[in-house]
Order: sequence, then C-alpha cells, then structure tokens
Amino acid sequence: MVRVGVIGFGTIGKRVADAISKQEDMELIGVAKTRPDYKAVVAVEKGYRLYVPKERIELFENTGIKISGSIDELLDRVDVIVDATPGGVGIKNKEELYKHRDVKVVFQGGEKPGVAEISFNALANYEEAIGKRYVRVVSCNTTAILRIISAFLLNNIALEKIRVFIARRGADPHEYSRGPIHDVVLDPPTIPSHHAVDVKSVIPKIDIVTSAIAIPVTLAHLHFVHLTFKEGISLDKIVDILYKTPRILVVESTKGFKSVGQLFEWAKDIGRYRNDIPENIVFRESIYVSNREALLIMAVHQESIVIPENIDAIRALTGYTDKWDSIKKTDRSLNLFMEGKVYG
Amino acid sequence: MVRVGVIGFGTIGKRVADAISKQEDMELIGVAKTRPDYKAVVAVEKGYRLYVPKERIELFENTGIKISGSIDELLDRVDVIVDATPGGVGIKNKEELYKHRDVKVVFQGGEKPGVAEISFNALANYEEAIGKRYVRVVSCNTTAILRIISAFLLNNIALEKIRVFIARRGADPHEYSRGPIHDVVLDPPTIPSHHAVDVKSVIPKIDIVTSAIAIPVTLAHLHFVHLTFKEGISLDKIVDILYKTPRILVVESTKGFKSVGQLFEWAKDIGRYRNDIPENIVFRESIYVSNREALLIMAVHQESIVIPENIDAIRALTGYTDKWDSIKKTDRSLNLFMEGKVYG
Repeated sequence: MVRVGVIGFGTIGKRVADAISKQEDMELIGVAKTRPDYKAVVAVEKGYRLYVPKERIELFENTGIKISGSIDELLDRVDVIVDATPGGVGIKNKEELYKHRDVKVVFQGGEKPGVAEISFNALANYEEAIGKRYVRVVSCNTTAILRIISAFLLNNIALEKIRVFIARRGADPHEYSRGPIHDVVLDPPTIPSHHAVDVKSVIPKIDIVTSAIAIPVTLAHLHFVHLTFKEGISLDKIVDILYKTPRILVVESTKGFKSVGQLFEWAKDIGRYRNDIPENIVFRESIYVSNREALLIMAVHQESIVIPENIDAIRALTGYTDKWDSIKKTDRSLNLFMEGKVYG
Repeated sequence: MVRVGVIGFGTIGKRVADAISKQEDMELIGVAKTRPDYKAVVAVEKGYRLYVPKERIELFENTGIKISGSIDELLDRVDVIVDATPGGVGIKNKEELYKHRDVKVVFQGGEKPGVAEISFNALANYEEAIGKRYVRVVSCNTTAILRIISAFLLNNIALEKIRVFIARRGADPHEYSRGPIHDVVLDPPTIPSHHAVDVKSVIPKIDIVTSAIAIPVTLAHLHFVHLTFKEGISLDKIVDILYKTPRILVVESTKGFKSVGQLFEWAKDIGRYRNDIPENIVFRESIYVSNREALLIMAVHQESIVIPENIDAIRALTGYTDKWDSIKKTDRSLNLFMEGKVYG
C-alpha cells in the first residue's frame, strides 16, 4: 500500500486525490491546502484529512474547518507526494519541503522540466520513470499530443513529423478573472508554442511544431492534428490504432457528436464523475488520410486529462514495473473506456 | 461610368454599396431591399436610391421609407448588378431577374460555383473574369486563402501544398440567433471543409486541405496556415512577399498586437470606416519557417474582406483589362494600406 499525499487542492489536486482514493494499491493519507475556502470544506466533507501550513493552523481552526495537522506532518506520513500547486510553486516546495525528506514527488506540467528527473506520459515513457524520485507529469495539451504520438509509435508506425494547431480554452470554469471574453488571443503570438518543446521533453527526437490561440470557452481545448508518417497509411489502420489505444476515445459525428458542449452533456448522461473526460476525444469523421498524411480534430478536457497519468506516475515512482497493468488498473478505477471502445 | 446596382443590403451589400459610391469610374444607381427595416432607413439617409419588389412598394410607402421604384426598374437602369442576397437566393434571382435582361452580375460566395462562369479572386484570376457576364466572388475564408496562395504564385514561388485550420467566428455581430455560445463546434465535423473545394474553384491545381471549427466570437475568423513549398524558402523572403502583396497586412506582436480584439480597436483608432479591415491580417511573429515549410496565423474580417474583390469583379466584367490598376484604384478608395506597408 503506497501512502500518498496531495499538496494543492485545485483543479488537478482535488481530482488526483479522488483518483488516489479509488486505487486498491494506494492510500490517500491527506491533502494540503493553504486557504480555508469552500474547497477545504469539500475536502473535509469527503473525509480527506486536511493538512495546512503550520502558521495557518489557527486561521483554519478559527473558520471551523477541521484539520489533521501541518504539512510537515503530512510529509512525514507519506511515501509519495503529488504536488498540484500552481506553476512555479512546485520547484520552491522541492527545495523547502521535499529535498531533505525521504519522499518521492510527482510534479505537474506547470513546473519547468528541470524540476524532475524526467517528464512523464504513461503511454510514452512509463518505463523511464520506474524507481525515480522526481517525475513531472506534462500538462494537458502535451499529454494529449503524446498519447496520439505514442499510439502510432507503440504500433511501430513511424512518424516523420507532427504539427498541431490548438484552440485553447481561455480559462477553467472557476477562473473568473481570466480571459478572453469574446476575443481570440494568440497564445503565444509566436510559433512554435511551448507545447512542442514540452512534447520533446518526453520524446526528444520527434519533429514537432505547435501553435496555439486562446478562445472564450472554458470547456476544453480543441486540437487540429496534422500527422505525416514515414510511409503511406490507411484510414482503417489509423482508426484501428486509435480505437485500441487506451485513453483515446473515438466519437462519431454521425451519432450526433459535433461540438465540445455535446461531449460534456454526454459525459453527464453516462454518469461520469464531475463530467470528466480524461481520454483524448477524437472525432471519427474528422480523420482525413491521404497517402502519408493524416489530419484529425480532437478535444482535450484540460481539467481531467492528466489525472490517469498522475496515478501511473505514482506507481512508476514506487517501482511498479508493469506499465500496461498500471494503465489498466488506473483506467478501470476511473471508469474510462477500455481498449477497443467505440462510442456510437 | 459603369452604372451599378446592389441587390441585398445586408453585411456585404451595404459595404459594397458604400465602396461603389467611392469609385470614380462607377455610379451607384441604387440598392434593393425586401424589408422596410432600419437598414432601409440607413440606405435612404445615405442618399442611396432604394428599390423594392413591386408587390412591396405599398408596404414600404406605408412605413414612410422613401423608395425610388421597383427592382425591375433598377435592373433597367444598370450595367452591372452585385447580388448580395443570402446564399441560394442569387441563383433564383439569376433565373427570374437577370437571365433575360442585358445585365452583368457579380454573385457572392454563398452561391454554388455553378451560378457563374467563373469564381473570382482579384489577385488570383482577375484576367479570367474580364468581359464575362457572370462572376462569383468567393466567400471570406476562401478569399483570404487565395490571397496567401497568390502572394507566392505571383512571385514565382511554387507551392507543393497548403493546409489551413480555421477557427471561424460563430456569427456576424447582428446575427443574434446564431451560435455557438460557449461551445466549440466542428464546422463541418468532416475534413476537408468546403473551403478547400472553393479555393480549387479558382485555382484548380492547388493541393489544399482545410478544416474548420466555429467558436463563440463575432469579430473575425482566425486561420492557422501551413504552407509547404517546392523549394526551401527563407523567413525574410516570406515576410517580404507578404509585405508587398496588396490586401495582406502584416502586424507585429512586438508592437502589442496579440489578439483579434486589438486589431479592431486599432482599426477604430485609425479611423477605418465601420472598423473594417478588408486586408488579410498576418501576425508577423507567428511566421515560422523551416526549410520548405512555413506556418503563420492570420485574422480574416468576414464582413469586409470580400468588398475590394467585389469592386474589382465589377471592373473585370465591364472589360477593364488592367488588373493591377483596378486593385490600386479599389484599395486607394477604401483607404487600404498599399504595397510595402508594415504596421508597427
């Protein structure tokens, strides 16, 4: 039983905590928060032990939120920490909290690659993370792109290059102060965007260029993916590979799927917790193939896509060697569609 | 003096009418509308003679809007009609109104290519339209793509292929009943989108694939353009070509341009009528070049981009043979940036 703590209880942290509590081989020791807000109340109501910075214990107690101790105490009780703090805080925590303790850490993609020994995606490089002390789960868009690349590489289909054009959701649903409202922002105004660099932090030799805009939507990112293979490939082959790759879901517009909003209405209807869709969602009819070239459109749920990767990263750190078994365990626990799924 | 009438006074029609009235070699005889709404009032207040269907003359007169006669009378008084009616109405008008009269017609991109002898873009194929009777100005996104392709072809730079990924504005500002609100719609859910087909209606031999989504913005379309040339090309060469091609404006994000909203604020500040930006707006720092490959991001003002093309199409129909002079006349009359412009 791996004892895990989660530092940070925002969009990613709360989901990782929920996912950990569903694993048979993990125990969620507690979660750490710095502010006594409604999210802290939710954590306690869910039965999660709440740990806070020593100097804030009084603040939390004054608001009536029950805490279980200081973050130092949490750190003493765990084997692995998932650091889900905002970008840039993880590296500070590493220096101040983790470095001098016997604890392994999973960082998030908001940190720079140098924070960890390796950047991680379960399909792409689970093996490289086995037994490591520090690992960084790459961010949402990068995770989605790595899954697509891995789908082909794992099936011995050589890629010459990949170009991805991303319409990013402007903000997460709770981020009321972020834009854009009714605008399209070049995010960044240069090409390539950082996503290409980040993909290379996991698969260094891939020829990739990415470009991104931000749009007034909080639901999901949307990717135009442009693949060039080293040899000709058929539509059937591509569809078959995507169908059978874990964490890639293929939906059919002939069954009515034509928008991102529909995807989340569907996720509600099938009872997905929080309406999360941690799989890459590829629109079947968008897949276009001509000789060595393929195009497709996919949606990426920024809030949940990295959750399965965090769970696998924990297992890899603790020395669990069976990549595919870890992926299966994780996906089953989260009720993801398993291999061979097709919706519609 | 070419006598011109405009049928339809919506987003395109009203702008074409304004543009015609600014040409030294054209006379705006009148505009035709079917509904006595605020747009009809504006037309009359601008001094445009208003023509309406015979059976609606009484309706207009009852609302106090001054009309100058029936559409039949307008048709008798003009050499050229610009049909700016909604998609599909133009072909009906051709059968019922134009066919049996001595009148030349410019149709819009909402009509199918078969409505006219040729589909038209001034840079791409002005010459082919000279002296024709029916011409179709392709729609906004197609116009933008054709200008980019033409910029290179006119400079003897051979293109191997072009792939364009379009984030379409969901609706024009006045179209309150169209979506999406806070959603991303695959528009269409298949690849290629119709834009590739439409580009080929002007340049048949180009290898082009396009894909499009609709987003909750009314300002402009945004294109990710992916060009593959037959030979290696430098960034400087590409920038130079775009700078000197009419109707392509290059803006610099180092001067603060990072969003579509900023473009239109700028257009207001420099006094552009209606804030229109009929040029392709290419973001300078987005241009990425690697050997034979180039990527760039451009904005496309859907309401105004085809206006210069409509004016040139009128000239071509009437037998005006000097393409570049027509383009210059048009652009000067509309206060567009002329050759060699760079903003920032």
